[in-house]
Amino acid sequence: MNILFLGDIVGRIGRRGVGLLLPQIKKEYKIDLVLANIENAASGFGITESVLKELMDYGIDAFTSGNHIWDKKEGIPLLDTYEKILRPANYPLGVPGRGYTVLTHLDKKVGIINIQGRVFMEPIENPFHVVKNIVEEMKKDTKIIIVDIHAEATSEKIAMGYFLDGMVTAVVGTHTHVQTADERILPGGTGYITDLGMCGALDSVLGVEKEAVLKKFLLQIPQKFNVPEKGLFKMEGVIIEVEEESGKTKNIIRLQRRGEIK
Amino acid sequence: MNILFLGDIVGRIGRRGVGLLLPQIKKEYKIDLVLANIENAASGFGITESVLKELMDYGIDAFTSGNHIWDKKEGIPLLDTYEKILRPANYPLGVPGRGYTVLTHLDKKVGIINIQGRVFMEPIENPFHVVKNIVEEMKKDTKIIIVDIHAEATSEKIAMGYFLDGMVTAVVGTHTHVQTADERILPGGTGYITDLGMCGALDSVLGVEKEAVLKKFLLQIPQKFNVPEKGLFKMEGVIIEVEEESGKTKNIIRLQRRGEIK
Amino acid sequence: MNILFLGDIVGRIGRRGVGLLLPQIKKEYKIDLVLANIENAASGFGITESVLKELMDYGIDAFTSGNHIWDKKEGIPLLDTYEKILRPANYPLGVPGRGYTVLTHLDKKVGIINIQGRVFMEPIENPFHVVKNIVEEMKKDTKIIIVDIHAEATSEKIAMGYFLDGMVTAVVGTHTHVQTADERILPGGTGYITDLGMCGALDSVLGVEKEAVLKKFLLQIPQKFNVPEKGLFKMEGVIIEVEEESGKTKNIIRLQRRGEIK
Amino acid sequence: MNILFLGDIVGRIGRRGVGLLLPQIKKEYKIDLVLANIENAASGFGITESVLKELMDYGIDAFTSGNHIWDKKEGIPLLDTYEKILRPANYPLGVPGRGYTVLTHLDKKVGIINIQGRVFMEPIENPFHVVKNIVEEMKKDTKIIIVDIHAEATSEKIAMGYFLDGMVTAVVGTHTHVQTADERILPGGTGYITDLGMCGALDSVLGVEKEAVLKKFLLQIPQKFNVPEKGLFKMEGVIIEVEEESGKTKNIIRLQRRGEIK
Ligand SMILES: [Fe+2]
Ligand SMILES: [Fe+2]
Ligand SMILES: [Fe+2]
Ligand SMILES: [Fe+2]
Ligand SMILES: [Fe+2]
Ligand SMILES: [Fe+2]
Ligand SMILES: [Fe+2]
Ligand SMILES: [Fe+2]
Repeated sequence: MNILFLGDIVGRIGRRGVGLLLPQIKKEYKIDLVLANIENAASGFGITESVLKELMDYGIDAFTSGNHIWDKKEGIPLLDTYEKILRPANYPLGVPGRGYTVLTHLDKKVGIINIQGRVFMEPIENPFHVVKNIVEEMKKDTKIIIVDIHAEATSEKIAMGYFLDGMVTAVVGTHTHVQTADERILPGGTGYITDLGMCGALDSVLGVEKEAVLKKFLLQIPQKFNVPEKGLFKMEGVIIEVEEESGKTKNIIRLQRRGEIK
Repeated sequence: MNILFLGDIVGRIGRRGVGLLLPQIKKEYKIDLVLANIENAASGFGITESVLKELMDYGIDAFTSGNHIWDKKEGIPLLDTYEKILRPANYPLGVPGRGYTVLTHLDKKVGIINIQGRVFMEPIENPFHVVKNIVEEMKKDTKIIIVDIHAEATSEKIAMGYFLDGMVTAVVGTHTHVQTADERILPGGTGYITDLGMCGALDSVLGVEKEAVLKKFLLQIPQKFNVPEKGLFKMEGVIIEVEEESGKTKNIIRLQRRGEIK
Repeated sequence: MNILFLGDIVGRIGRRGVGLLLPQIKKEYKIDLVLANIENAASGFGITESVLKELMDYGIDAFTSGNHIWDKKEGIPLLDTYEKILRPANYPLGVPGRGYTVLTHLDKKVGIINIQGRVFMEPIENPFHVVKNIVEEMKKDTKIIIVDIHAEATSEKIAMGYFLDGMVTAVVGTHTHVQTADERILPGGTGYITDLGMCGALDSVLGVEKEAVLKKFLLQIPQKFNVPEKGLFKMEGVIIEVEEESGKTKNIIRLQRRGEIK
Repeated sequence: MNILFLGDIVGRIGRRGVGLLLPQIKKEYKIDLVLANIENAASGFGITESVLKELMDYGIDAFTSGNHIWDKKEGIPLLDTYEKILRPANYPLGVPGRGYTVLTHLDKKVGIINIQGRVFMEPIENPFHVVKNIVEEMKKDTKIIIVDIHAEATSEKIAMGYFLDGMVTAVVGTHTHVQTADERILPGGTGYITDLGMCGALDSVLGVEKEAVLKKFLLQIPQKFNVPEKGLFKMEGVIIEVEEESGKTKNIIRLQRRGEIK
């Protein structure tokens, strides 16, 4: 089974880029299941229903997210409506939505867990304690489990990889919007990468117009951040080849594509 | 001119790894100048004189560093003794050492600047304002300028790349100890990568024994962090091919090697 | 000379509260000059021109601010229009407004400096280096200098007090919205308090409706913060009795009043 | 019943100061029970057994602490040995010590809870969720419950006060080492103060020699922090008069004393 997991999709240019390139990539790599992090899908901040439908139309099967999923008020109820969109599982009791799910896809059960780091981020529940409980429960149902650790610090993501090594199929990082070159299979058979990268504008800062970001760094007063509507984009993620009987990763390769939205 | 820039060297295993592999790499890639970030060279925390001499013996020509350079008290005076070891230039007036230098190497002048980010880090002077002044002054002396932006946040490093694009030869990031897969030549001709990665223990968290780091994340009380003495290591960095007349980057490629220290 | 310095005025209830009680307090304490921090004056976030005029009508002579002064876009140009409203002086070059001024009030020159801390706050320029330069320049003009250190950490504010002790008339803290009980005259003659407190709703969290703040702490997802329009309020600050010949503080007393806006 | 709760005791000068003044204060205010926060009791960092015994000899009945309790390795096992010393209750499972206790003192049961904030601090478990569970359990045993909320941000401490208002006797803050002037009885009958202040050196920054702290703010590289051995000290806290039948606070007054250790 081949799973494609795309990094944070940022704004219209990121969505259209995925729409443009995904069909060919699915064929080329015989992709069975497509996952993507969409915390920035609606103009860089959260989601809307039309954005969600657009992404489902492109053939993305399920979605993870992160700290930016709360940015658009209208996007929050969607977390309760759609089973296939997750928010990090370690938000406290009472928060809308769910943090993990088991999909039945082509007669195979695939568990997906979304978890969020806390170093330099919001102090939600301990991701290590929370993920352990979910994985132990989920293993009764399926051996194929993919974890999106949405976090800032490389130390926390790598620690999560080792923590889950041998217990899940793969641990992939999101949130920094820069793909890392450390994809590997950990000693216990779990596929790992610190960050998937992003799907968004190429000449930008994390998908956002670079001029405003530079102004923020020079003046240190609030700036309005816009996402470019068109131009060159990149589309990044990994392809995980899963050994279905064991739930281990046979191969993990990085994907980097470019294109242009006019 | 070919410049090899190695990511943060962490502890004895990182140093020995460099000593083992560097001679062959220098030949293979016809390297003219070797640079490395050594903030973690002495058991993961700062430097000592013997560590510095060991690294010079291996053939590293000049050194950058970062927030950990202050960790060993005995290492701080070395910043005033040795011209070829830098600390970030944007520490305030009165701090020991220097943040930039121009080397004459094989009859060529090469400027090296070490600058530090502030997002999620110590609030030292504004790196953008400081680096601009240094670059403008240094350009009177040489067109070949290499900048190490030692920072946590991908946004700050990418912004620094665009800020200096066309003004310097290359901007390379350090500090996260994970190599990124975004090496490229920016529109203005400046070579760029968000993080060089590290030279240190392979099965570790940023070079540190993973058991203690996991304990820290599970219990959240202080733990003692040790660097493994031996075993598998990785050695990471980039090779920058410089067009000497223009000071622009012709090519930037990532280097990832592994080996074992017994 | 008696100077009244009011803590952060938060929203309509804070403004009206000041309007209600100020006339009586001015008489009671023979106040010559009234200063106030107004970063939260317009519904808790920044300022507007009508808010500014309302506060001038009440008899406040000059204004300091802090990190929230940028919250309302329309308030930013006012920093260039009105000489008597300051923003922290250690924002970088290019930021609108000014960070210090010398007023001539009743034939006396009074210098006012607004400076901002960096611990747990935006990494603007070093407040210690910046304030030293301003004080040295200002001392040529007047001996009476009042400094508002707008900061989060008690350590940074106390350090600023000792740093300026003997050089300025008084150092008063703002930003935490809770009045501290450590008002005193430092060994060199400078009046000091870690925080002036606030002018705003009594049964609130820092002036904001407590229900939303509690929800934020329980759920850790964004909440809309409103300032109560009416009800019980408190009005806090200090009265500094200045020895005009020396520019030293003869006495510093805390002021705490309550009232109700219907 | 009269309870004296002392703010963070910092180093030898803080301990000796308490030893010097406590007997007289106990008589003067007819104190029945003495509590103190001792995270900084041993030279500013953590505790030792001899320090603990010294403080028990002075007549302190039970102890709370905070983030600094882990600073001295030898102090950590004491958390399991002595029932009367607490560490914040919201550290995760597996951490030594306990976070709450019910004392029987003069035939009265008094519950004490130590909880820690997370804003600008270590991301331990959610203090609001954790404290609620403890209080609900403890209320079966006694109506008299005192909570030490050890936190940095005024918003988090005030929110905790309102959250527990009517459920516990008093909520007192520690950690900032500066006494606040906002002691009051909340609408539901719970006594409250944002910070008790400290017992330590007067002319210091939070109990630490001010020269090193200033050097840290000017140079921003690590400095060694020492606690003055002798000189002027202050001793700060509150006295809570408890209505035993209801478990409510009848009166809460701030205590500020000074003295000298030669
Ligand atoms: Fe993102
Ligand atoms: Fe994110
Ligand atoms: Fe490093
Ligand atoms: Fe570093
Ligand atoms: Fe404020
Ligand atoms: Fe503020
Ligand atoms: Fe403390
Ligand atoms: Fe503390």
